[in-house]
Amino acid sequence: MSANVHALALSALNEHHLFTALDLAGTFAFAISGAIAARNRGLDWFGVMVVAFVVACGGGIVRDLCIGVVPPAGLTDWRYLTVAMIAAWMTIAAGKLVARLAHPVIFFDSLGLGLFAVTGAQKAMIYGHNAEVAILLGIVTAVGGGVARDVLLTRVPIILQREIYASAALIGAGIEVAGESLGWDSSTRTWLALGVCFALRYFSLRYKWNLPRAPGYDDKDSA
Amino acid sequence: MSANVHALALSALNEHHLFTALDLAGTFAFAISGAIAARNRGLDWFGVMVVAFVVACGGGIVRDLCIGVVPPAGLTDWRYLTVAMIAAWMTIAAGKLVARLAHPVIFFDSLGLGLFAVTGAQKAMIYGHNAEVAILLGIVTAVGGGVARDVLLTRVPIILQREIYASAALIGAGIEVAGESLGWDSSTRTWLALGVCFALRYFSLRYKWNLPRAPGYDDKDSA
Amino acid sequence: MSANVHALALSALNEHHLFTALDLAGTFAFAISGAIAARNRGLDWFGVMVVAFVVACGGGIVRDLCIGVVPPAGLTDWRYLTVAMIAAWMTIAAGKLVARLAHPVIFFDSLGLGLFAVTGAQKAMIYGHNAEVAILLGIVTAVGGGVARDVLLTRVPIILQREIYASAALIGAGIEVAGESLGWDSSTRTWLALGVCFALRYFSLRYKWNLPRAPGYDDKDSA
Repeated sequence: MSANVHALALSALNEHHLFTALDLAGTFAFAISGAIAARNRGLDWFGVMVVAFVVACGGGIVRDLCIGVVPPAGLTDWRYLTVAMIAAWMTIAAGKLVARLAHPVIFFDSLGLGLFAVTGAQKAMIYGHNAEVAILLGIVTAVGGGVARDVLLTRVPIILQREIYASAALIGAGIEVAGESLGWDSSTRTWLALGVCFALRYFSLRYKWNLPRAPGYDDKDSA
Repeated sequence: MSANVHALALSALNEHHLFTALDLAGTFAFAISGAIAARNRGLDWFGVMVVAFVVACGGGIVRDLCIGVVPPAGLTDWRYLTVAMIAAWMTIAAGKLVARLAHPVIFFDSLGLGLFAVTGAQKAMIYGHNAEVAILLGIVTAVGGGVARDVLLTRVPIILQREIYASAALIGAGIEVAGESLGWDSSTRTWLALGVCFALRYFSLRYKWNLPRAPGYDDKDSA
Repeated sequence: MSANVHALALSALNEHHLFTALDLAGTFAFAISGAIAARNRGLDWFGVMVVAFVVACGGGIVRDLCIGVVPPAGLTDWRYLTVAMIAAWMTIAAGKLVARLAHPVIFFDSLGLGLFAVTGAQKAMIYGHNAEVAILLGIVTAVGGGVARDVLLTRVPIILQREIYASAALIGAGIEVAGESLGWDSSTRTWLALGVCFALRYFSLRYKWNLPRAPGYDDKDSA
């Protein structure tokens, strides 16, 4: 990507105040979710801050590497680090209070999923990439942080659990990309995509919706 | 890498019909292998598709990031996604039938290893990198998908098992690179490298060949 | 990054003999640490070499991808591969002798942490990036290899253990960056940063120093 295209894309990004606000909101939501998981595993306060940052910025960093934005925004833009640290400190300070609430984790995790599916797809399109790249990177941005959290904390990866997760991100990113090519205005498609992705994830957790398993499952790993 | 060199390399890639055909065949082989493992773990059908795609394209995406090809071909080229999805759907639809066959998993996994060791080394050389980069990225392309599969599915990583695996990829990529510098023609070195890597991996699994352990092994992790 | 800036940065790097020497020393230290862990898990000698290389070069490769240095130095520069292989072979050949020594693992791991925190921050600054990027990539370079080792070997990640680890890397990278902006000369800040980071990590392991846990920890993962 030449320097000119890069500068153009950056100025377009700066005009997207909505993009920045949503991306920082997603960062906050995922940082809270990561900090709670780390705190519940008994990490020291620095470990809580590290995991909060990785969960909040991991997906976006992979997305930026894939579209050639180096260094990734999660490393250069002080706002991401600051928002993640505030979320981590709130979780540490709130102590036992937050630990008793399972509900906020679900809420923040679902919100972060929707926000990042939308902003991931948006950023790929702003940099001029095609619909396939935009949808795939929307999914990567949305699920990357949660997968990193589970790998670091040696938990069963969320992508393994039979819940609507990556599929909700696909639908969110898909609405954003389809809306763009249908000429919908920016905020309509963004709020619709965010709302549908959040609702799918949130209500699937509350009411135990699941996608069907593939036939032939026999409860052991014979591969 | 300047835009001209990039365009030149891309046109060279397009001329390499053999490269593309082999790379798509490797994608298909690894997608089948990933889909079977995911299905046997009881993932829903969307999870099976995600794991199939990650196993099939993960190694190549890391390779492309390392040589500055952004976005990686696995994300921009619709053929990779399509081939992986077809493989996932075949595995889901074939159900219990495929589950009973352990043999095809070994076969497809060995074939994918050989194909990706060769195409990974080829692509690095097409983009003008040295022999060390080509061999290392041949190994990364070949073993990346399998390692990602095992990390996602929380299985003992294949690289841990005492089998000829990364070493077969090294030999395959090494033959490809050595053949290039010795002036062998493209298809001779490709088929030889692919055949040797596949045969090493396949027969080592069938006949339990192993490399010796490092001395001092005491069955516990004391480090 | 334009080709000129890239060439300029490369020539600056070449002038930094101190940088190169420290970076290779860190590679050696982490390769020893990785090889011992892999040997103790009973991997074959090729697996020991692979894990040694990943632990030694993994953090630096991620750092290089994040600042747009492709292919990463760990793949293009033969010295990194050579140093890692020498360390792996020394570990394999020394056999039972090294296995009985727990002390050297701690020593080499602490040394590698300090060396990579400093060189990671240095390289980011040489390529013209800001203080935040330099500190974050110092941490990534320092802890990346150890995290990769633990993920590959399915051990409890070192970042989870309540020890001064990533925090020592933060302080080391922070001293390097602060010293640069305060105008200290290159070797003063480098030796100070290296010494403080090494000492923090090494003595925290010897005397069981820990950071406090976040309040609300209840010994189970309820998130």
